[in-house]
Amino acid sequence: MQRTQFSALACSIARTLDVIGEPWSPLILHDVYVGINRFDQLQSDLGISRKVLTERLNWLVTQEVLTRRPYSDRPPRHEYLLTPKGEELCDLLLVMVRWGDRWTAGEAGPPVLYRHHTCGQIAHVELHCSQCHTPMRATDVDVLPGPGAAL
Amino acid sequence: MQRTQFSALACSIARTLDVIGEPWSPLILHDVYVGINRFDQLQSDLGISRKVLTERLNWLVTQEVLTRRPYSDRPPRHEYLLTPKGEELCDLLLVMVRWGDRWTAGEAGPPVLYRHHTCGQIAHVELHCSQCHTPMRATDVDVLPGPGAAL
Repeated sequence: MQRTQFSALACSIARTLDVIGEPWSPLILHDVYVGINRFDQLQSDLGISRKVLTERLNWLVTQEVLTRRPYSDRPPRHEYLLTPKGEELCDLLLVMVRWGDRWTAGEAGPPVLYRHHTCGQIAHVELHCSQCHTPMRATDVDVLPGPGAAL
Repeated sequence: MQRTQFSALACSIARTLDVIGEPWSPLILHDVYVGINRFDQLQSDLGISRKVLTERLNWLVTQEVLTRRPYSDRPPRHEYLLTPKGEELCDLLLVMVRWGDRWTAGEAGPPVLYRHHTCGQIAHVELHCSQCHTPMRATDVDVLPGPGAAL
């Protein structure tokens, strides 16, 4: 019911939340991203019920964020892979990580580090403008109605 | 109960989800960001129940993402403002918007456009590396344990 409400908003945030807007989905996505991509591995890593995990995986497959691929015939077993749409959602996770590292990690420091292939350095993501390539923050923009503003 | 579970994971994604990990919070944040920041305005814009809205606003204030400021004494009324911690969460929303625009907006196009103050152009955010400033995507990094990896 809540899902229908969010979809009805002509808003790309609401629509994104329709796909990953409950807390398990981003954690499942991140696990698949780091290679924890079989049902039993996911279940044990996240400590999630089999019922909820099944439901979330089916939802993410329906949304074309993950695909399911058999890795064993007997017994039949599947692993989950990111689609291009899912890979781009993982970019969002990198931004979430950055915020969490800055504001929630405390004195212990970041639980996870990311090494950028291009430069080989431990780095985090920064947001740049697609047009002028200088930093672009939420406080640096005007918000205007777009072509899809009407329902 | 779910909140406790997520906090227990040494993971900046899980900790970020503790703050905004239910679908209303990001939409409330975005409304405050665009200037819809009084209780009644928020309620009417989002079509959310007063009970849930009160609960979510109190949570976001507790988490120091929003602050509450009186704008009327009789009757007592408050508006909500972003803290620096909250402003940085809005950066995450810009990345969410970008994903939603690409993968969910369809033929109608983006519901909302963002004009970058620095260059004056309609733009979206791109993720760059904090070290070498070239594009940095989730598919471009190695994931390593950080100093805060142990609980």
